[in-house]
Amino acid sequence: MTTDSATFRWPVRVYYEDTDAGGVVYHARYLNFCERARTEWLRARGWEQDALRDQHRLVFVVARASLEYRRPARFNDALTVTCEVANRRSAVVDFVQRVEHSADSSVLCEVSVRVVCVDTDSFRPKTIPEPILESFA
Amino acid sequence: MTTDSATFRWPVRVYYEDTDAGGVVYHARYLNFCERARTEWLRARGWEQDALRDQHRLVFVVARASLEYRRPARFNDALTVTCEVANRRSAVVDFVQRVEHSADSSVLCEVSVRVVCVDTDSFRPKTIPEPILESFA
Amino acid sequence: MTTDSATFRWPVRVYYEDTDAGGVVYHARYLNFCERARTEWLRARGWEQDALRDQHRLVFVVARASLEYRRPARFNDALTVTCEVANRRSAVVDFVQRVEHSADSSVLCEVSVRVVCVDTDSFRPKTIPEPILESFA
Amino acid sequence: MTTDSATFRWPVRVYYEDTDAGGVVYHARYLNFCERARTEWLRARGWEQDALRDQHRLVFVVARASLEYRRPARFNDALTVTCEVANRRSAVVDFVQRVEHSADSSVLCEVSVRVVCVDTDSFRPKTIPEPILESFA
Repeated sequence: MTTDSATFRWPVRVYYEDTDAGGVVYHARYLNFCERARTEWLRARGWEQDALRDQHRLVFVVARASLEYRRPARFNDALTVTCEVANRRSAVVDFVQRVEHSADSSVLCEVSVRVVCVDTDSFRPKTIPEPILESFA
Repeated sequence: MTTDSATFRWPVRVYYEDTDAGGVVYHARYLNFCERARTEWLRARGWEQDALRDQHRLVFVVARASLEYRRPARFNDALTVTCEVANRRSAVVDFVQRVEHSADSSVLCEVSVRVVCVDTDSFRPKTIPEPILESFA
Repeated sequence: MTTDSATFRWPVRVYYEDTDAGGVVYHARYLNFCERARTEWLRARGWEQDALRDQHRLVFVVARASLEYRRPARFNDALTVTCEVANRRSAVVDFVQRVEHSADSSVLCEVSVRVVCVDTDSFRPKTIPEPILESFA
Repeated sequence: MTTDSATFRWPVRVYYEDTDAGGVVYHARYLNFCERARTEWLRARGWEQDALRDQHRLVFVVARASLEYRRPARFNDALTVTCEVANRRSAVVDFVQRVEHSADSSVLCEVSVRVVCVDTDSFRPKTIPEPILESFA
């Protein structure tokens, strides 16, 4: 898998809070790292999620996730998390993401995440407004 | 410090998620453990916090906390968290709590927590309703 | 999908620490809940993971995970996490797990987890000792 | 309390993972934020904690912490965490830290943390090597 130079990349440092007694990053934390990258990817496109929630009454929720753990990340590692849109339609966006060692771009974890746009109150799917969806192209 | 036989006690098991690469329980997690014990202490008195929030429009928030770490807890340890009221008045309740090894009651962490009852929406202090406050005696 | 009466079930209560500002359980936490259930499933078969690590020099690490989020869990919900072995061979065990509402057994999240037995120090795959693997039948 | 222009400051963004169903940052997370700032403060002085652990056989552990919560932080807030040494001697360093809104420097949480340098294996206090302690001045 090659990475387009345009791929969004977000740096994440591994702190003690991210690790477990096995000496490596706790497996669930990769989902946290990926969400930070998606949040910053959204912000880079001009969308602040608190404004989307309060003004557009929409929230993006995770409907599906899968993770392949290649190699463990360790305390104090400098990581890079990528974020790319694989598919988008109506209320659904599929992301492919990778967690890499920043130093050599070796892949530690490959992640697929399906996000659904839902109404803030009812939690029912809601079509992503056109200006937002367009900015995901 | 002696413990009255009436002291509320809540068991907590240490899982990988609670530990860090130092091989011990991550220091912030003791606040999580203590909150679980306070939640169960409230439940034992008949108060479900989701009902308090939705029906009484009140939430208990932590206003102050202090922790003395005596000895580290480790992966797979069986812990007991105590919960006692030190002071209560109007909108404020002060708790003293301990995290102990269940096997020998040795103290791992001593915690003081001040909780304030606030309005769900405004987050302003709100007098604790009498039946609730009485049950804290 | 029917559930054998022999399916292992572990209760999990949703505390504030598990929720996010969307009012629901944070999506990564389901992996924590599932690991708690696998840990207790192991314990019920007689295996304490700290002893496996120290005496057998083996650790179980997550190599793959996938999650389908059906419905959100909320603050104070009483959940049940199931744990069943789908496949096992040499150093690999595949689990299927579900997070359910305890009250009505409605499924909130379906999870598949591949766990690999690795050497404590080298993190290389290590055949699961026969008595342990047999107990997984 | 005035802040010297030389005070170390570390930015922290509030993600969903940091919040709870009350709509605010979960109270224990402030300890995580403060540790990130102390880690980066150490790094800025030239000390990488994985190297300190592996080469100097020393780890800094939290022995005491106290937190005063002034105002809640919320989802998507841009925060700044300060880090200053209040006292240092032998194996002990006392930090005072603040979590502020980056926009207006309003204080959300005031934190005191006592850190003790311990031996990696025995977890017994260990005098901080002179070059390290000097760099804390």
